[in-house]
Amino acid sequence: MTEPDSTETTDLREDARDDEYALDPEIVAALVEAVESHDRVAALALLEDLHNADIADLLEQITSEERRAFVELLGAEIAPDVLTELEEGVRDEVLKVLDPGLIVEAARELDTDDVVYLLSDLDEAQRKEVLDALEPADRAAISQSLTYPEYSAGRLMQRELVKAPPFWTVGQMIDFMRASDDLPEPFYDVILVDPSARPIGTIPLSRIMGMSRPVTLGSIMEEDFRTLHVEDSQEDVAYAFNQYHLVSAPVVDDDGRLVGMITIDDAMTVLDEEAEEDILRLGGVGDEEISDRVWEITRRRFPWLAANLLTAILASAVIAIFDSTIADVVALAVLMPIVASMGGNAATQTMTVAVRALATRDLTPTNAFRIIGRETMVGFANGVAFAVLIGVAAGLFYSDWTLGSVLAAAMVINMLVAGVAGILIPIGLDRLGADPALASGVFVTTVTDVVGFFAFLGLAAAILV
Amino acid sequence: MTEPDSTETTDLREDARDDEYALDPEIVAALVEAVESHDRVAALALLEDLHNADIADLLEQITSEERRAFVELLGAEIAPDVLTELEEGVRDEVLKVLDPGLIVEAARELDTDDVVYLLSDLDEAQRKEVLDALEPADRAAISQSLTYPEYSAGRLMQRELVKAPPFWTVGQMIDFMRASDDLPEPFYDVILVDPSARPIGTIPLSRIMGMSRPVTLGSIMEEDFRTLHVEDSQEDVAYAFNQYHLVSAPVVDDDGRLVGMITIDDAMTVLDEEAEEDILRLGGVGDEEISDRVWEITRRRFPWLAANLLTAILASAVIAIFDSTIADVVALAVLMPIVASMGGNAATQTMTVAVRALATRDLTPTNAFRIIGRETMVGFANGVAFAVLIGVAAGLFYSDWTLGSVLAAAMVINMLVAGVAGILIPIGLDRLGADPALASGVFVTTVTDVVGFFAFLGLAAAILV
Repeated sequence: MTEPDSTETTDLREDARDDEYALDPEIVAALVEAVESHDRVAALALLEDLHNADIADLLEQITSEERRAFVELLGAEIAPDVLTELEEGVRDEVLKVLDPGLIVEAARELDTDDVVYLLSDLDEAQRKEVLDALEPADRAAISQSLTYPEYSAGRLMQRELVKAPPFWTVGQMIDFMRASDDLPEPFYDVILVDPSARPIGTIPLSRIMGMSRPVTLGSIMEEDFRTLHVEDSQEDVAYAFNQYHLVSAPVVDDDGRLVGMITIDDAMTVLDEEAEEDILRLGGVGDEEISDRVWEITRRRFPWLAANLLTAILASAVIAIFDSTIADVVALAVLMPIVASMGGNAATQTMTVAVRALATRDLTPTNAFRIIGRETMVGFANGVAFAVLIGVAAGLFYSDWTLGSVLAAAMVINMLVAGVAGILIPIGLDRLGADPALASGVFVTTVTDVVGFFAFLGLAAAILV
Repeated sequence: MTEPDSTETTDLREDARDDEYALDPEIVAALVEAVESHDRVAALALLEDLHNADIADLLEQITSEERRAFVELLGAEIAPDVLTELEEGVRDEVLKVLDPGLIVEAARELDTDDVVYLLSDLDEAQRKEVLDALEPADRAAISQSLTYPEYSAGRLMQRELVKAPPFWTVGQMIDFMRASDDLPEPFYDVILVDPSARPIGTIPLSRIMGMSRPVTLGSIMEEDFRTLHVEDSQEDVAYAFNQYHLVSAPVVDDDGRLVGMITIDDAMTVLDEEAEEDILRLGGVGDEEISDRVWEITRRRFPWLAANLLTAILASAVIAIFDSTIADVVALAVLMPIVASMGGNAATQTMTVAVRALATRDLTPTNAFRIIGRETMVGFANGVAFAVLIGVAAGLFYSDWTLGSVLAAAMVINMLVAGVAGILIPIGLDRLGADPALASGVFVTTVTDVVGFFAFLGLAAAILV
């Protein structure tokens, strides 16, 4: 095992850099071997160079049995941060094997947002045990956080923050921080609050450090700042951080009082999770994790496939209407999947763009009508292009220009419908409050399959036979 | 137009919060009206309350003509930050209409990373004009940055940073910052460098602020920090920030010398863009933007549809082999799309999970074999489940249990193949250095269509006829 070494030649360093941010499979293999031979010393030596986030990745990538052996041998060495980095399924496994005393110890070390995150995974008994072991102030704060809805700003925020009244000077602020022994680390902004604990401004640390001691905080604060509400969805939180380039933001309760702070690293994690959710849902997959087992995955994918089966049966029913036509002209059976497939693809393109634009709030009532019109025209334009291509090809191949024309006409119809359905269905689902990424695919495919087969076989029945 | 008002009742506030982070269509409409009636005062009053990022969104959502009118009326009022927030197509339009003097002025105000970003959009002549107008030091730094590959850390980094030697004390550091009049704002870490400008440690500002003046910086620095290289891809940069919860990171050149710094807000933007790219590519769409016109979109989507047409024609060719079988048993034409469709869906599920896991580096050589085995078993398991369902349904409907059995057998085969292809194709493309999100879909569909039709019609030809 070699470490990337800055004294190597450039070429070698280029190679090393390629894998710089991936967990080295050789390290993983060596570690698994050390764990299986109960070689604690070797295992610890290997762990030492790994960042907690990489140790979490390692635990996710090894088998369930290896993971168990790892936790049994090295449980006491697993940093609290490793637990919060783990994906849910793996964390559940680890928490089940881990000595409860270690979980309590981890909870004492972590920031409140991480404790809240960990606790939401524990069962009632474990949760109570951990809560009871915490300092009363932390316990109250964490119990309070747990009352907020899952995936809300209240769950995401940390209680640890630095606030000050606006009449303090820079000097007082610095003295306060020097005297304080439990500053959150790192933090980026001081939050100024009025006497009833309502945030009235924020100051980036870098600005405080550039000012001389007598300057009053109120005179250098950012008045135009954004507060989040405890019940804001985490999706809104991620959007606000990304849109307005926030680094930290105060969180307030219903009375507008400061109760916590969210930092950008947590918002970035949420942004990543939300994008992952959209990608998986668009691919017809629910919430699954790379470490899930065969049975879990089979069961989770089943409903999506079942929905697709209904769509496919509906499309078959349309074909069945025209079975005598197909018996007369078998070429129809050969060509009909082309119409359905092209429509399905065109609709998926439009739907993907629409779902993404809705998620990023680029598709709004301001431009919705324009975008609908544009997608309709795009569907028509590509429909005509592919109609000509495939119509001529089929006409030549079968020496039957009527068949070619029927195919071309069906192609234009289906791709036009694909454009309209691809944009209207996600917008419609969004207006109804449903997640357009979740269900658009099934509806869209149903429309393009049914219309594709119906248009092609219907025209053929009317004209050819 | 009403502003969300914190004195309203809770119910009303809930409603307002729903749209808190979306651009109010009424404001957009009012602004467009003001622009069209050349009412500068009214337009400015409306703009005043909007964040630069929201003004950029607004410019993206209105029509090209409205945009032009907006820039002509209010060009001088467009903050430089608005330009960097715009998506490329819209920025090009705005830059074409904007007074060149204003572009130069914007470049003087922006951080170097933003200037680099702007310049990469300008044509040679415009670029030269802007560069010539900058301070010589900035010009040199920016010209240097432009030599790094697009989408690299070198393009993303800003030159503005705060560095110090490790022997400085906290007091010296604070005095330096107070004396400095061009501190980057905000910044989060001081980077410690050795005499040859190589980074040797970082210190979060919050830590400096908590220490007393005589403490030496070297004694409180983070030695375990991550540096990025100017040629690291922006994807790697985003990964490192997200994985290791970085807030800022030093960027070094080939000699290991500090040349810049990347901050988390830029990394977050990249993470968002990379996720968007994967979503669009998986949906068979290239790089398109919501403001693109019909013709651009039609042209950009055409190649993806053309690739799909080839797949569809290949599938048709397989059907054509069995046309006499279909002529004998028309039910085959009715049922065959079900097999292909279910295989396509199952493969898309597996492919989506694999593409995402490759992007997040959760699918590695360590677990690849295990995941391939798992996907094969999932494909088989769901294949058997749906084979039973559809086999029985078809057997009953057509009162033909041989037909039902053939359909069931084809379903198992195709869904098993779907699982295998769905995982092997993205992994294979990734190993070959291609983006698995870009091309997996076409290959996967080709496989499931061809195998689906061939298995079903082939079995039917052998057994039924």
